[in-house]
Amino acid sequence: MTRPALELANPKFIDFMVGRRSDGGIDGYLGIQVVEFEAGRLVAEFDVGDDHVTFIGNMHGGCLAALCDHCLGLVLYPVMSPGSWAATTEFKVNYLRPVSGGTCRATAEVRSMTKRSAVVTIEVENEGRLVAVAQGTCTVKLAEEKTDGD
Amino acid sequence: MTRPALELANPKFIDFMVGRRSDGGIDGYLGIQVVEFEAGRLVAEFDVGDDHVTFIGNMHGGCLAALCDHCLGLVLYPVMSPGSWAATTEFKVNYLRPVSGGTCRATAEVRSMTKRSAVVTIEVENEGRLVAVAQGTCTVKLAEEKTDGD
Amino acid sequence: MTRPALELANPKFIDFMVGRRSDGGIDGYLGIQVVEFEAGRLVAEFDVGDDHVTFIGNMHGGCLAALCDHCLGLVLYPVMSPGSWAATTEFKVNYLRPVSGGTCRATAEVRSMTKRSAVVTIEVENEGRLVAVAQGTCTVKLAEEKTDGD
Amino acid sequence: MTRPALELANPKFIDFMVGRRSDGGIDGYLGIQVVEFEAGRLVAEFDVGDDHVTFIGNMHGGCLAALCDHCLGLVLYPVMSPGSWAATTEFKVNYLRPVSGGTCRATAEVRSMTKRSAVVTIEVENEGRLVAVAQGTCTVKLAEEKTDGD
Repeated sequence: MTRPALELANPKFIDFMVGRRSDGGIDGYLGIQVVEFEAGRLVAEFDVGDDHVTFIGNMHGGCLAALCDHCLGLVLYPVMSPGSWAATTEFKVNYLRPVSGGTCRATAEVRSMTKRSAVVTIEVENEGRLVAVAQGTCTVKLAEEKTDGD
Repeated sequence: MTRPALELANPKFIDFMVGRRSDGGIDGYLGIQVVEFEAGRLVAEFDVGDDHVTFIGNMHGGCLAALCDHCLGLVLYPVMSPGSWAATTEFKVNYLRPVSGGTCRATAEVRSMTKRSAVVTIEVENEGRLVAVAQGTCTVKLAEEKTDGD
Repeated sequence: MTRPALELANPKFIDFMVGRRSDGGIDGYLGIQVVEFEAGRLVAEFDVGDDHVTFIGNMHGGCLAALCDHCLGLVLYPVMSPGSWAATTEFKVNYLRPVSGGTCRATAEVRSMTKRSAVVTIEVENEGRLVAVAQGTCTVKLAEEKTDGD
Repeated sequence: MTRPALELANPKFIDFMVGRRSDGGIDGYLGIQVVEFEAGRLVAEFDVGDDHVTFIGNMHGGCLAALCDHCLGLVLYPVMSPGSWAATTEFKVNYLRPVSGGTCRATAEVRSMTKRSAVVTIEVENEGRLVAVAQGTCTVKLAEEKTDGD
Protein backbone atom coordinates (compact mmCIF):
# COMPACT_ATOMS: atom_id res chain seq x y z
CA MET A 1 0.00 0.00 0.00
CA THR A 2 1.36 3.37 -1.05
CA ARG A 3 1.03 6.28 1.35
CA PRO A 4 2.50 9.77 1.06
CA ALA A 5 4.99 10.99 3.66
CA LEU A 6 3.08 13.54 5.73
CA GLU A 7 4.52 15.94 8.25
CA LEU A 8 3.13 15.89 11.76
CA ALA A 9 1.79 19.43 12.17
CA ASN A 10 -0.23 19.04 15.34
CA PRO A 11 1.28 16.50 17.76
CA LYS A 12 -0.82 17.81 20.64
CA PHE A 13 -3.94 16.59 18.85
CA ILE A 14 -2.56 13.07 18.94
CA ASP A 15 -1.70 13.33 22.62
CA PHE A 16 -5.21 14.57 23.31
CA MET A 17 -7.00 11.90 21.26
CA VAL A 18 -5.22 8.60 21.87
CA GLY A 19 -7.20 6.53 24.35
CA ARG A 20 -10.06 9.01 24.27
CA ARG A 21 -13.61 7.73 23.93
CA SER A 22 -16.23 10.02 22.39
CA ASP A 23 -18.91 10.92 24.89
CA GLY A 24 -21.25 12.87 22.61
CA GLY A 25 -22.42 13.00 19.03
CA ILE A 26 -22.94 10.03 16.77
CA ASP A 27 -19.36 8.96 17.63
CA GLY A 28 -20.45 9.03 21.26
CA TYR A 29 -23.55 7.00 20.42
CA LEU A 30 -21.25 4.37 18.92
CA GLY A 31 -18.64 4.75 21.67
CA ILE A 32 -15.72 5.30 19.30
CA GLN A 33 -12.31 5.25 20.96
CA VAL A 34 -9.01 6.25 19.35
CA VAL A 35 -6.49 3.42 19.69
CA GLU A 36 -3.52 4.48 17.56
CA PHE A 37 -2.74 7.76 15.86
CA GLU A 38 0.20 8.95 13.81
CA ALA A 39 0.72 11.25 10.82
CA GLY A 40 -1.57 9.92 8.10
CA ARG A 41 -2.89 6.90 9.96
CA LEU A 42 -5.58 6.36 12.58
CA VAL A 43 -6.94 3.26 14.33
CA ALA A 44 -10.28 3.70 16.10
CA GLU A 45 -12.80 1.19 17.39
CA PHE A 46 -16.07 0.68 19.17
CA ASP A 47 -17.70 -2.24 20.93
CA VAL A 48 -20.89 -3.46 19.31
CA GLY A 49 -23.67 -2.87 21.81
CA ASP A 50 -27.22 -4.17 21.96
CA ASP A 51 -28.61 -0.95 20.56
CA HIS A 52 -26.43 -1.28 17.43
CA VAL A 53 -27.98 -4.60 16.44
CA THR A 54 -31.22 -4.77 14.43
CA PHE A 55 -34.10 -7.22 14.75
CA ILE A 56 -32.36 -9.45 12.16
CA GLY A 57 -29.54 -9.99 14.66
CA ASN A 58 -26.83 -8.11 12.76
CA MET A 59 -25.39 -4.69 13.42
CA HIS A 60 -27.04 -1.85 11.50
CA GLY A 61 -24.83 -0.96 8.54
CA GLY A 62 -25.25 2.69 9.41
CA CYS A 63 -22.97 2.13 12.42
CA LEU A 64 -20.10 1.15 10.11
CA ALA A 65 -20.93 3.99 7.73
CA ALA A 66 -20.81 6.49 10.58
CA LEU A 67 -17.55 5.00 11.85
CA CYS A 68 -15.99 5.39 8.39
CA ASP A 69 -17.25 8.94 7.99
CA HIS A 70 -15.89 9.82 11.41
CA CYS A 71 -12.44 8.39 10.79
CA LEU A 72 -12.21 9.95 7.31
CA GLY A 73 -12.08 13.44 8.74
CA LEU A 74 -10.39 12.69 12.05
CA VAL A 75 -7.29 11.10 10.50
CA LEU A 76 -6.36 14.44 8.95
CA TYR A 77 -6.13 16.59 12.09
CA PRO A 78 -2.57 15.67 13.10
CA VAL A 79 -1.27 16.62 9.65
CA MET A 80 -2.99 20.00 9.60
CA SER A 81 -1.93 23.03 11.62
CA PRO A 82 -3.95 23.79 14.78
CA GLY A 83 -7.17 25.65 13.93
CA SER A 84 -7.59 23.89 10.59
CA TRP A 85 -10.51 21.60 9.90
CA ALA A 86 -11.47 18.73 7.64
CA ALA A 87 -14.91 17.51 6.61
CA THR A 88 -15.90 14.45 4.61
CA THR A 89 -17.33 15.45 1.25
CA GLU A 90 -17.95 11.99 -0.16
CA PHE A 91 -17.22 8.38 0.55
CA LYS A 92 -18.13 4.86 -0.47
CA VAL A 93 -18.27 1.77 1.66
CA ASN A 94 -18.56 -1.93 0.89
CA TYR A 95 -19.80 -4.17 3.67
CA LEU A 96 -18.11 -7.54 3.36
CA ARG A 97 -19.62 -9.61 6.14
CA PRO A 98 -22.36 -9.19 8.74
CA VAL A 99 -21.31 -8.11 12.23
CA SER A 100 -23.20 -9.34 15.27
CA GLY A 101 -20.96 -8.45 18.21
CA GLY A 102 -17.40 -7.89 19.38
CA THR A 103 -15.32 -4.86 18.45
CA CYS A 104 -15.24 -2.98 15.13
CA ARG A 105 -11.79 -1.56 14.51
CA ALA A 106 -11.20 0.89 11.66
CA THR A 107 -7.77 1.67 10.23
CA ALA A 108 -7.81 4.88 8.19
CA GLU A 109 -4.91 5.92 6.00
CA VAL A 110 -4.34 9.12 4.04
CA ARG A 111 -3.59 8.17 0.43
CA SER A 112 -3.10 11.66 -1.00
CA MET A 113 -3.32 15.18 0.36
CA THR A 114 -3.20 18.65 -1.12
CA LYS A 115 -3.81 22.04 0.46
CA ARG A 116 -7.54 21.69 -0.11
CA SER A 117 -8.44 18.02 -0.02
CA ALA A 118 -7.35 14.53 0.92
CA VAL A 119 -8.29 11.01 -0.09
CA VAL A 120 -8.48 8.40 2.66
CA THR A 121 -9.01 4.63 2.59
CA ILE A 122 -10.38 2.64 5.51
CA GLU A 123 -10.48 -1.00 6.49
CA VAL A 124 -12.73 -2.23 9.28
CA GLU A 125 -12.09 -5.48 11.09
CA ASN A 126 -14.32 -7.37 13.48
CA GLU A 127 -13.26 -10.48 15.37
CA GLY A 128 -10.16 -10.80 13.18
CA ARG A 129 -12.00 -10.58 9.88
CA LEU A 130 -12.28 -7.76 7.38
CA VAL A 131 -15.89 -6.54 7.45
CA ALA A 132 -15.81 -3.30 5.47
CA VAL A 133 -13.63 -1.25 3.14
CA ALA A 134 -14.23 2.40 2.40
CA GLN A 135 -12.65 5.25 0.51
CA GLY A 136 -13.53 8.90 0.37
CA THR A 137 -12.56 12.54 0.11
CA CYS A 138 -12.24 15.26 2.73
CA THR A 139 -12.26 18.96 2.17
CA VAL A 140 -9.42 20.58 4.08
CA LYS A 141 -9.39 24.15 5.33
CA LEU A 142 -6.01 25.12 6.70
CA ALA A 143 -5.91 27.73 9.46
CA GLU A 144 -3.20 29.68 7.65
CA GLU A 145 -5.19 30.00 4.44
CA LYS A 146 -6.74 33.35 3.79
CA THR A 147 -10.53 33.16 3.78
CA ASP A 148 -11.51 33.31 0.15
CA GLY A 149 -15.24 33.21 0.25
CA ASP A 150 -16.03 29.72 -0.97
CA MET B 1 -35.99 9.70 -13.53
CA THR B 2 -36.58 6.13 -14.61
CA ARG B 3 -38.00 3.68 -12.07
CA PRO B 4 -39.17 0.14 -12.59
CA ALA B 5 -42.80 -0.76 -11.92
CA LEU B 6 -42.73 -2.79 -8.72
CA GLU B 7 -45.57 -4.79 -7.27
CA LEU B 8 -46.66 -4.05 -3.71
CA ALA B 9 -46.07 -7.39 -1.98
CA ASN B 10 -46.41 -6.34 1.65
CA PRO B 11 -48.94 -3.53 2.14
CA LYS B 12 -49.14 -4.18 5.87
CA PHE B 13 -45.54 -3.11 6.21
CA ILE B 14 -46.45 0.30 4.81
CA ASP B 15 -49.43 0.61 7.15
CA PHE B 16 -47.17 -0.26 10.06
CA MET B 17 -44.34 2.12 9.14
CA VAL B 18 -45.91 5.37 7.94
CA GLY B 19 -45.79 7.93 10.71
CA ARG B 20 -43.65 5.65 12.84
CA ARG B 21 -40.58 7.09 14.56
CA SER B 22 -37.69 4.73 15.38
CA ASP B 23 -37.21 4.43 19.12
CA GLY B 24 -34.08 2.26 19.14
CA GLY B 25 -30.96 1.58 17.15
CA ILE B 26 -28.97 4.16 15.23
CA ASP B 27 -32.22 5.13 13.50
CA GLY B 28 -33.64 5.75 16.95
CA TYR B 29 -30.55 7.79 17.89
CA LEU B 30 -31.27 9.98 14.85
CA GLY B 31 -35.03 9.91 15.41
CA ILE B 32 -35.89 8.79 11.89
CA GLN B 33 -39.60 8.93 11.05
CA VAL B 34 -41.23 7.46 7.94
CA VAL B 35 -43.25 10.14 6.16
CA GLU B 36 -44.33 8.56 2.87
CA PHE B 37 -44.07 4.99 1.65
CA GLU B 38 -45.18 3.28 -1.54
CA ALA B 39 -43.89 0.47 -3.75
CA GLY B 40 -40.33 1.46 -4.65
CA ARG B 41 -40.27 4.83 -2.93
CA LEU B 42 -39.76 5.98 0.66
CA VAL B 43 -39.59 9.40 2.30
CA ALA B 44 -38.07 9.47 5.80
CA GLU B 45 -36.76 12.32 7.91
CA PHE B 46 -35.26 13.33 11.21
CA ASP B 47 -34.90 16.60 13.06
CA VAL B 48 -31.33 17.73 13.59
CA GLY B 49 -30.74 17.75 17.34
CA ASP B 50 -27.98 19.27 19.42
CA ASP B 51 -26.21 15.93 19.75
CA HIS B 52 -25.96 15.58 15.95
CA VAL B 53 -23.93 18.78 15.59
CA THR B 54 -20.15 18.78 16.00
CA PHE B 55 -17.94 21.42 17.60
CA ILE B 56 -17.57 23.08 14.17
CA GLY B 57 -21.29 23.87 14.24
CA ASN B 58 -22.34 21.51 11.44
CA MET B 59 -24.09 18.17 11.64
CA HIS B 60 -21.78 15.16 11.68
CA GLY B 61 -21.73 13.63 8.20
CA GLY B 62 -22.15 10.22 9.75
CA CYS B 63 -25.76 11.14 10.55
CA LEU B 64 -26.52 11.55 6.84
CA ALA B 65 -24.58 8.39 6.01
CA ALA B 66 -26.58 6.41 8.57
CA LEU B 67 -29.84 7.90 7.25
CA CYS B 68 -28.94 6.83 3.71
CA ASP B 69 -27.92 3.34 4.81
CA HIS B 70 -31.16 2.97 6.73
CA CYS B 71 -33.39 4.08 3.86
CA LEU B 72 -31.51 1.93 1.33
CA GLY B 73 -32.71 -1.26 2.96
CA LEU B 74 -36.04 -0.04 4.31
CA VAL B 75 -37.40 1.05 0.93
CA LEU B 76 -37.39 -2.56 -0.27
CA TYR B 77 -39.62 -4.14 2.38
CA PRO B 78 -42.99 -3.27 0.79
CA VAL B 79 -41.94 -4.88 -2.50
CA MET B 80 -40.77 -8.11 -0.88
CA SER B 81 -43.03 -10.79 0.54
CA PRO B 82 -43.45 -10.90 4.34
CA GLY B 83 -40.52 -12.67 6.00
CA SER B 84 -38.01 -11.48 3.37
CA TRP B 85 -35.17 -9.18 4.27
CA ALA B 86 -32.83 -6.69 2.64
CA ALA B 87 -29.42 -5.46 3.77
CA THR B 88 -27.24 -2.74 2.33
CA THR B 89 -24.09 -4.22 0.81
CA GLU B 90 -22.51 -1.03 -0.47
CA PHE B 91 -23.31 2.61 -1.01
CA LYS B 92 -21.74 5.93 -1.84
CA VAL B 93 -22.77 9.36 -0.65
CA ASN B 94 -21.84 12.89 -1.71
CA TYR B 95 -22.46 15.64 0.80
CA LEU B 96 -23.39 18.80 -1.07
CA ARG B 97 -23.81 21.42 1.67
CA PRO B 98 -23.30 21.61 5.41
CA VAL B 99 -26.34 21.10 7.62
CA SER B 100 -26.67 22.95 10.91
CA GLY B 101 -30.29 22.44 11.94
CA GLY B 102 -33.84 21.88 10.72
CA THR B 103 -35.07 18.61 9.23
CA CYS B 104 -33.19 16.18 6.96
CA ARG B 105 -35.60 14.47 4.60
CA ALA B 106 -34.45 11.54 2.48
CA THR B 107 -36.29 10.32 -0.60
CA ALA B 108 -35.19 6.81 -1.59
CA GLU B 109 -36.17 5.22 -4.89
CA VAL B 110 -35.60 1.71 -6.19
CA ARG B 111 -33.91 1.95 -9.58
CA SER B 112 -33.62 -1.74 -10.38
CA MET B 113 -34.49 -4.93 -8.60
CA THR B 114 -33.89 -8.61 -9.20
CA LYS B 115 -34.60 -11.64 -7.03
CA ARG B 116 -31.30 -11.18 -5.22
CA SER B 117 -30.42 -7.49 -5.22
CA ALA B 118 -31.64 -3.98 -5.78
CA VAL B 119 -30.06 -0.62 -6.58
CA VAL B 120 -31.47 2.42 -4.81
CA THR B 121 -30.78 6.16 -5.18
CA ILE B 122 -31.40 8.70 -2.43
CA GLU B 123 -31.70 12.45 -2.26
CA VAL B 124 -31.58 14.27 1.07
CA GLU B 125 -33.02 17.76 1.49
CA ASN B 126 -32.62 20.15 4.39
CA GLU B 127 -34.44 23.46 4.63
CA GLY B 128 -35.49 23.20 0.99
CA ARG B 129 -32.03 22.55 -0.37
CA LEU B 130 -30.43 19.35 -1.63
CA VAL B 131 -27.71 18.40 0.87
CA ALA B 132 -26.75 14.86 -0.15
CA VAL B 133 -27.14 12.31 -2.92
CA ALA B 134 -26.43 8.61 -2.48
CA GLN B 135 -26.67 5.40 -4.42
CA GLY B 136 -26.12 1.83 -3.35
CA THR B 137 -26.94 -1.84 -3.51
CA CYS B 138 -28.97 -4.08 -1.23
CA THR B 139 -28.86 -7.81 -1.01
CA VAL B 140 -32.35 -9.25 -1.05
CA LYS B 141 -33.39 -12.55 0.50
CA LEU B 142 -36.94 -13.45 -0.38
CA ALA B 143 -38.88 -15.57 2.10
CA GLU B 144 -40.06 -17.92 -0.64
CA GLU B 145 -36.55 -18.68 -1.86
CA LYS B 146 -35.17 -22.03 -0.89
CA THR B 147 -32.23 -21.74 1.43
CA ASP B 148 -29.24 -22.40 -0.75
CA GLY B 149 -26.36 -22.14 1.61
CA ASP B 150 -24.72 -18.88 0.65
CA MET C 1 -35.14 15.68 -8.82
CA THR C 2 -33.63 18.86 -7.40
CA ARG C 3 -31.21 20.83 -9.55
CA PRO C 4 -29.69 24.23 -8.90
CA ALA C 5 -30.42 27.09 -11.28
CA LEU C 6 -27.18 27.62 -13.19
CA GLU C 7 -26.33 30.54 -15.41
CA LEU C 8 -25.29 29.80 -18.98
CA ALA C 9 -21.78 31.28 -19.11
CA ASN C 10 -20.54 29.81 -22.37
CA PRO C 11 -23.32 29.41 -24.95
CA LYS C 12 -20.81 29.02 -27.78
CA PHE C 13 -19.63 25.78 -26.24
CA ILE C 14 -23.14 24.38 -26.59
CA ASP C 15 -23.39 25.54 -30.20
CA PHE C 16 -20.06 23.88 -30.89
CA MET C 17 -20.84 20.59 -29.19
CA VAL C 18 -24.44 19.68 -30.02
CA GLY C 19 -24.49 17.07 -32.75
CA ARG C 20 -20.73 16.69 -32.56
CA ARG C 21 -19.25 13.19 -32.49
CA SER C 22 -15.85 12.70 -30.82
CA ASP C 23 -13.25 11.60 -33.34
CA GLY C 24 -10.33 11.02 -30.97
CA GLY C 25 -9.57 9.95 -27.44
CA ILE C 26 -11.45 7.32 -25.49
CA ASP C 27 -14.64 9.26 -26.30
CA GLY C 28 -13.72 8.86 -29.96
CA TYR C 29 -13.07 5.15 -29.42
CA LEU C 30 -16.63 4.88 -28.08
CA GLY C 31 -18.03 7.28 -30.67
CA ILE C 32 -19.74 9.57 -28.16
CA GLN C 33 -22.05 12.16 -29.69
CA VAL C 34 -23.64 15.10 -27.87
CA VAL C 35 -27.41 15.03 -28.36
CA GLU C 36 -28.77 17.72 -26.04
CA PHE C 37 -26.99 20.36 -24.01
CA GLU C 38 -28.22 23.14 -21.75
CA ALA C 39 -27.03 24.83 -18.55
CA GLY C 40 -26.52 22.00 -16.05
CA ARG C 41 -27.75 19.14 -18.25
CA LEU C 42 -26.19 17.06 -21.01
CA VAL C 43 -27.42 14.13 -23.07
CA ALA C 44 -24.75 12.16 -24.92
CA GLU C 45 -24.78 8.73 -26.52
CA PHE C 46 -22.85 6.16 -28.48
CA ASP C 47 -23.79 3.16 -30.55
CA VAL C 48 -22.55 -0.15 -29.17
CA GLY C 49 -20.11 -1.55 -31.72
CA ASP C 50 -18.63 -4.99 -32.12
CA ASP C 51 -15.38 -3.93 -30.49
CA HIS C 52 -17.24 -2.85 -27.31
CA VAL C 53 -18.62 -6.33 -26.71
CA THR C 54 -16.62 -8.97 -24.82
CA PHE C 55 -16.41 -12.70 -25.46
CA ILE C 56 -19.32 -13.19 -23.04
CA GLY C 57 -21.55 -11.30 -25.46
CA ASN C 58 -22.10 -8.22 -23.31
CA MET C 59 -20.58 -4.77 -23.59
CA HIS C 60 -17.46 -4.21 -21.49
CA GLY C 61 -18.45 -2.27 -18.37
CA GLY C 62 -15.47 -0.02 -18.94
CA CYS C 63 -17.34 1.53 -21.88
CA LEU C 64 -20.09 2.73 -19.56
CA ALA C 65 -17.56 3.86 -16.97
CA ALA C 66 -15.71 5.91 -19.58
CA LEU C 67 -18.99 7.37 -20.85
CA CYS C 68 -19.91 8.45 -17.31
CA ASP C 69 -16.47 9.92 -16.64
CA HIS C 70 -16.63 11.83 -19.92
CA CYS C 71 -20.07 13.31 -19.28
CA LEU C 72 -19.23 14.21 -15.68
CA GLY C 73 -16.73 16.81 -16.80
CA LEU C 74 -18.31 17.83 -20.09
CA VAL C 75 -21.65 18.85 -18.57
CA LEU C 76 -19.93 21.68 -16.69
CA TYR C 77 -18.39 23.58 -19.60
CA PRO C 78 -21.47 25.63 -20.54
CA VAL C 79 -21.82 26.91 -16.98
CA MET C 80 -18.16 27.95 -16.69
CA SER C 81 -16.62 30.98 -18.37
CA PRO C 82 -14.56 30.32 -21.53
CA GLY C 83 -11.04 29.18 -20.65
CA SER C 84 -12.15 27.35 -17.50
CA TRP C 85 -11.84 23.62 -17.16
CA ALA C 86 -13.36 20.74 -15.19
CA ALA C 87 -11.91 17.33 -14.42
CA THR C 88 -13.53 14.36 -12.74
CA THR C 89 -11.96 13.68 -9.36
CA GLU C 90 -14.08 10.74 -8.30
CA PHE C 91 -17.19 8.88 -9.30
CA LYS C 92 -19.15 5.74 -8.62
CA VAL C 93 -21.22 3.72 -11.04
CA ASN C 94 -23.75 0.92 -10.61
CA TYR C 95 -24.42 -1.25 -13.64
CA LEU C 96 -28.04 -2.34 -13.56
CA ARG C 97 -28.40 -4.60 -16.60
CA PRO C 98 -26.11 -6.07 -19.22
CA VAL C 99 -25.91 -4.25 -22.57
CA SER C 100 -25.40 -6.19 -25.77
CA GLY C 101 -26.16 -3.70 -28.54
CA GLY C 102 -28.16 -0.62 -29.50
CA THR C 103 -27.42 2.88 -28.22
CA CYS C 104 -26.24 3.90 -24.75
CA ARG C 105 -27.60 7.32 -23.87
CA ALA C 106 -26.33 9.17 -20.80
CA THR C 107 -28.18 12.06 -19.17
CA ALA C 108 -25.90 14.04 -16.85
CA GLU C 109 -27.21 16.66 -14.46
CA VAL C 110 -25.36 19.06 -12.20
CA ARG C 111 -26.69 18.64 -8.66
CA SER C 112 -24.55 21.25 -6.91
CA MET C 113 -21.80 23.61 -7.96
CA THR C 114 -19.42 25.91 -6.16
CA LYS C 115 -16.48 27.93 -7.45
CA ARG C 116 -14.19 24.92 -7.07
CA SER C 117 -16.23 21.78 -7.52
CA ALA C 118 -19.47 20.28 -8.73
CA VAL C 119 -21.43 17.10 -8.07
CA VAL C 120 -23.09 15.45 -11.06
CA THR C 121 -25.47 12.49 -11.34
CA ILE C 122 -25.85 10.41 -14.48
CA GLU C 123 -28.40 7.94 -15.78
CA VAL C 124 -27.63 5.72 -18.77
CA GLU C 125 -30.38 4.14 -20.84
CA ASN C 126 -30.12 1.44 -23.47
CA GLU C 127 -33.04 0.26 -25.57
CA GLY C 128 -35.47 2.12 -23.30
CA ARG C 129 -34.19 0.62 -20.09
CA LEU C 130 -32.04 2.11 -17.34
CA VAL C 131 -28.68 0.31 -17.45
CA ALA C 132 -26.46 2.40 -15.18
CA VAL C 133 -26.55 5.17 -12.60
CA ALA C 134 -23.51 7.15 -11.56
CA GLN C 135 -22.58 10.08 -9.36
CA GLY C 136 -19.34 11.92 -8.94
CA THR C 137 -17.38 15.07 -8.31
CA CYS C 138 -15.52 17.39 -10.67
CA THR C 139 -12.85 19.85 -9.78
CA VAL C 140 -13.55 23.19 -11.41
CA LYS C 141 -10.94 25.77 -12.32
CA LEU C 142 -12.51 29.00 -13.45
CA ALA C 143 -10.56 31.10 -15.94
CA GLU C 144 -11.08 34.23 -13.87
CA GLU C 145 -9.61 32.72 -10.72
CA LYS C 146 -6.13 33.80 -9.82
CA THR C 147 -3.64 30.97 -10.00
CA ASP C 148 -2.98 30.01 -6.42
CA GLY C 149 -0.48 27.25 -6.71
CA ASP C 150 -2.44 24.16 -5.82
CA MET D 1 -3.91 -5.12 4.11
CA THR D 2 -6.16 -8.09 4.82
CA ARG D 3 -6.85 -10.54 2.02
CA PRO D 4 -8.65 -13.86 2.17
CA ALA D 5 -6.78 -17.04 1.28
CA LEU D 6 -8.16 -18.09 -2.10
CA GLU D 7 -7.63 -21.38 -3.83
CA LEU D 8 -6.21 -21.35 -7.35
CA ALA D 9 -8.96 -23.03 -9.35
CA ASN D 10 -7.82 -22.23 -12.88
CA PRO D 11 -4.02 -22.11 -13.20
CA LYS D 12 -4.22 -22.36 -16.99
CA PHE D 13 -5.90 -18.98 -17.09
CA ILE D 14 -2.85 -17.46 -15.42
CA ASP D 15 -0.49 -19.20 -17.84
CA PHE D 16 -2.57 -17.89 -20.72
CA MET D 17 -2.81 -14.31 -19.49
CA VAL D 18 0.58 -13.34 -18.05
CA GLY D 19 2.46 -11.25 -20.56
CA ARG D 20 -0.57 -11.06 -22.82
CA ARG D 21 -1.57 -7.68 -24.28
CA SER D 22 -5.22 -7.13 -25.18
CA ASP D 23 -5.65 -6.62 -28.91
CA GLY D 24 -9.35 -5.84 -29.00
CA GLY D 25 -12.08 -4.22 -26.96
CA ILE D 26 -11.64 -1.19 -24.73
CA ASP D 27 -8.76 -3.04 -23.05
CA GLY D 28 -7.21 -3.34 -26.50
CA TYR D 29 -7.81 0.37 -27.13
CA LEU D 30 -5.84 1.08 -23.94
CA GLY D 31 -3.29 -1.66 -24.64
CA ILE D 32 -3.64 -3.37 -21.27
CA GLN D 33 -1.03 -6.04 -20.57
CA VAL D 34 -1.09 -8.51 -17.69
CA VAL D 35 2.17 -8.31 -15.74
CA GLU D 36 1.63 -10.47 -12.66
CA PHE D 37 -1.18 -12.83 -11.76
CA GLU D 38 -1.78 -15.10 -8.79
CA ALA D 39 -4.81 -16.27 -6.79
CA GLY D 40 -6.57 -13.08 -5.65
CA ARG D 41 -4.08 -10.59 -7.07
CA LEU D 42 -3.47 -9.11 -10.52
CA VAL D 43 -1.04 -6.50 -11.83
CA ALA D 44 -1.88 -5.04 -15.24
CA GLU D 45 -0.65 -1.96 -17.02
CA PHE D 46 -0.81 0.13 -20.17
CA ASP D 47 1.39 2.79 -21.70
CA VAL D 48 -0.23 6.20 -21.98
CA GLY D 49 -0.47 6.98 -25.68
CA ASP D 50 -1.19 10.21 -27.50
CA ASP D 51 -4.80 9.26 -28.07
CA HIS D 52 -5.38 8.85 -24.32
CA VAL D 53 -4.46 12.47 -23.58
CA THR D 54 -7.05 15.26 -23.84
CA PHE D 55 -6.60 18.82 -25.11
CA ILE D 56 -5.78 19.90 -21.52
CA GLY D 57 -2.65 17.73 -21.66
CA ASN D 58 -3.73 15.10 -19.16
CA MET D 59 -4.94 11.58 -19.72
CA HIS D 60 -8.72 11.20 -19.94
CA GLY D 61 -9.99 9.90 -16.61
CA GLY D 62 -12.11 7.40 -18.50
CA CYS D 63 -8.93 5.48 -19.32
CA LEU D 64 -8.27 4.85 -15.64
CA ALA D 65 -11.92 4.04 -15.03
CA ALA D 66 -11.89 1.47 -17.82
CA LEU D 67 -8.61 0.01 -16.51
CA CYS D 68 -10.14 -0.40 -13.04
CA ASP D 69 -13.34 -1.92 -14.40
CA HIS D 70 -11.32 -4.36 -16.48
CA CYS D 71 -9.09 -5.50 -13.61
CA LEU D 72 -12.05 -5.82 -11.22
CA GLY D 73 -13.46 -8.71 -13.19
CA LEU D 74 -10.25 -10.18 -14.56
CA VAL D 75 -8.65 -10.73 -11.14
CA LEU D 76 -11.33 -13.28 -10.28
CA TYR D 77 -10.84 -15.75 -13.14
CA PRO D 78 -7.97 -17.74 -11.61
CA VAL D 79 -9.98 -18.37 -8.44
CA MET D 80 -13.08 -19.56 -10.30
CA SER D 81 -13.44 -22.91 -12.02
CA PRO D 82 -13.06 -22.93 -15.84
CA GLY D 83 -16.30 -21.87 -17.53
CA SER D 84 -17.26 -19.47 -14.72
CA TRP D 85 -17.50 -15.77 -15.31
CA ALA D 86 -17.34 -12.51 -13.35
CA ALA D 87 -18.75 -9.11 -14.23
CA THR D 88 -18.33 -5.79 -12.47
CA THR D 89 -21.63 -4.65 -10.95
CA GLU D 90 -20.44 -1.44 -9.33
CA PHE D 91 -17.27 0.40 -8.50
CA LYS D 92 -15.96 3.72 -7.32
CA VAL D 93 -12.72 5.42 -8.24
CA ASN D 94 -10.83 8.40 -6.82
CA TYR D 95 -8.30 10.05 -9.10
CA LEU D 96 -5.45 11.37 -6.98
CA ARG D 97 -3.16 13.08 -9.48
CA PRO D 98 -3.24 13.94 -13.17
CA VAL D 99 -1.44 11.57 -15.54
CA SER D 100 0.27 12.89 -18.65
CA GLY D 101 2.41 10.01 -19.88
CA GLY D 102 4.39 6.93 -18.83
CA THR D 103 2.82 3.68 -17.71
CA CYS D 104 -0.31 3.19 -15.60
CA ARG D 105 -0.01 0.06 -13.51
CA ALA D 106 -3.01 -1.31 -11.61
CA THR D 107 -2.75 -3.75 -8.73
CA ALA D 108 -6.08 -5.43 -8.02
CA GLU D 109 -6.70 -7.53 -4.92
CA VAL D 110 -9.70 -9.61 -3.92
CA ARG D 111 -10.81 -8.53 -0.46
CA SER D 112 -13.72 -10.89 0.01
CA MET D 113 -15.38 -13.55 -2.08
CA THR D 114 -18.50 -15.67 -1.79
CA LYS D 115 -20.11 -18.03 -4.25
CA ARG D 116 -21.97 -15.16 -5.89
CA SER D 117 -19.90 -12.02 -5.52
CA ALA D 118 -16.53 -10.56 -4.68
CA VAL D 119 -15.21 -7.21 -3.52
CA VAL D 120 -11.95 -5.99 -5.06
CA THR D 121 -9.73 -2.99 -4.33
CA ILE D 122 -7.35 -1.46 -6.85
CA GLU D 123 -4.42 0.89 -6.71
CA VAL D 124 -3.03 2.52 -9.85
CA GLU D 125 0.50 3.88 -10.01
CA ASN D 126 2.07 6.07 -12.66
CA GLU D 127 5.72 7.02 -12.66
CA GLY D 128 6.12 5.75 -9.10
CA ARG D 129 3.22 7.70 -7.68
CA LEU D 130 -0.24 6.57 -6.65
CA VAL D 131 -2.71 8.12 -9.12
CA ALA D 132 -5.97 6.32 -8.40
CA VAL D 133 -7.67 4.04 -5.88
CA ALA D 134 -10.82 2.09 -6.62
CA GLN D 135 -13.07 -0.46 -5.00
CA GLY D 136 -15.99 -2.38 -6.36
CA THR D 137 -18.10 -5.50 -6.56
CA CYS D 138 -18.25 -8.29 -9.11
CA THR D 139 -21.04 -10.71 -9.67
CA VAL D 140 -19.69 -14.24 -9.91
CA LYS D 141 -21.32 -17.09 -11.78
CA LEU D 142 -19.58 -20.36 -11.13
CA ALA D 143 -19.69 -22.99 -13.88
CA GLU D 144 -20.75 -25.69 -11.43
CA GLU D 145 -23.73 -23.76 -10.15
CA LYS D 146 -27.10 -24.91 -11.37
CA THR D 147 -28.81 -22.34 -13.52
CA ASP D 148 -31.43 -20.86 -11.25
CA GLY D 149 -33.20 -18.40 -13.46
CA ASP D 150 -31.95 -15.06 -12.24
